[in-house]
Amino acid sequence: MKLSNIRVVLVQTTHPGNIGAAVRAMKNMGLEKLYLVEPKHFPHADATARASGADDLLATAVVCETLEGALAGCGLVFGASARLRTIAWPQVNPRQCASVISTLDDTAEVALVFGREHAGLTNEELEQCHYLVHIPANPEFSSLNLAAAVQVLAYEARVACVDEVASQETGVTSSPMATADEMAGFYRHLEQTIIDIGFLDPANPRQLMRRLRRLFNRAHLDKMELNILRGIFAAAQKNIN
Amino acid sequence: MKLSNIRVVLVQTTHPGNIGAAVRAMKNMGLEKLYLVEPKHFPHADATARASGADDLLATAVVCETLEGALAGCGLVFGASARLRTIAWPQVNPRQCASVISTLDDTAEVALVFGREHAGLTNEELEQCHYLVHIPANPEFSSLNLAAAVQVLAYEARVACVDEVASQETGVTSSPMATADEMAGFYRHLEQTIIDIGFLDPANPRQLMRRLRRLFNRAHLDKMELNILRGIFAAAQKNIN
Repeated sequence: MKLSNIRVVLVQTTHPGNIGAAVRAMKNMGLEKLYLVEPKHFPHADATARASGADDLLATAVVCETLEGALAGCGLVFGASARLRTIAWPQVNPRQCASVISTLDDTAEVALVFGREHAGLTNEELEQCHYLVHIPANPEFSSLNLAAAVQVLAYEARVACVDEVASQETGVTSSPMATADEMAGFYRHLEQTIIDIGFLDPANPRQLMRRLRRLFNRAHLDKMELNILRGIFAAAQKNIN
Repeated sequence: MKLSNIRVVLVQTTHPGNIGAAVRAMKNMGLEKLYLVEPKHFPHADATARASGADDLLATAVVCETLEGALAGCGLVFGASARLRTIAWPQVNPRQCASVISTLDDTAEVALVFGREHAGLTNEELEQCHYLVHIPANPEFSSLNLAAAVQVLAYEARVACVDEVASQETGVTSSPMATADEMAGFYRHLEQTIIDIGFLDPANPRQLMRRLRRLFNRAHLDKMELNILRGIFAAAQKNIN
């Protein structure tokens, strides 16, 4: 995935200073495409001032009348949501969002959509997104500044994609992330293997599987890594006396 | 580690709006303690406006004449550095910084130090830090807004420490991170094990170890996890026909 193919879509932004701060955060992280849906004031001197040298992204910004227009051509859309919504919609955290993005190929177009400063995105707008992305925050003070939210998602995208670039340079290609079903099968296979080789006593399991789940959940396995590890488990099982 | 024991230290901040945006980012992520070393304007209406409801952190901010004063009582100090410095000093990325913080106990006091808007921290100031922390950025536009840098480090700290809290609630305690030496021993043991069980052919190793290194480096193993995995390797080796 190319960072430059990630577009940031800001919906009905009230303060032009936030638009400027958002493009600064974008350019810092290597993102280039800004779409504005019905901005209250744009262009504006406050946006230029807060962009602090990222005003090239303001100059190339695309102003749209509708969210649909801003999402045209995007294969994958994430909508930032400060609240855990009552609507049932697939939800990811920023690291999972970045992990999904990093597995896409170089031609993919992705949108990160951010709502109004005080009201966020409407349910109708969120339903145009494939995933809601929720930035973990202090439950008693959970509303991030708009540019701060852009900064967090753009930062996670950069870490995931540039790490990706680095690993591609070492000749290691990537594979799509393992699904929840595949992870469930993985944990069953891991548990059976460590029982078979005599490491886990089913009568006294202690915290072992919980610790191992925590470790491998944190690693966000891709499909190929999962298959390698299951190959190792199978080889260990085959060698049992 | 308690997020409320992480202090943010801002050195000679010029724009009071940045102080306000920084405390908003702090409070969003659950951080509470602000130290200001020789701020140019403080208190100031711009700081209060940008704090957007986090002005309780401005009210309790500690204004110091020196960085030494602001660091008093801190066991671990991270200095934010935009550039890869010429001085040889231990350097971490934001995720590693958060990972180290998350392993500390609840009484630990940690400082995250941020320099001037245009000039950052001096070498003399950086030498008062145990680690430099560098936020990965576009090499052609690498200087983040002060509050955006605070946001990224506070976000990583929250993700690491709240994940920690969640896992403690499930009864899984944490352990200090594995050292580079221990990881080297881990990879030797892993490689020997998968050779012994017939999964890795040393004559045709392909990308296997590279992929496994990438996976386990990403997981940031703690000492206990490393010992569990080495226990599994040893059990698999013991069962070889």
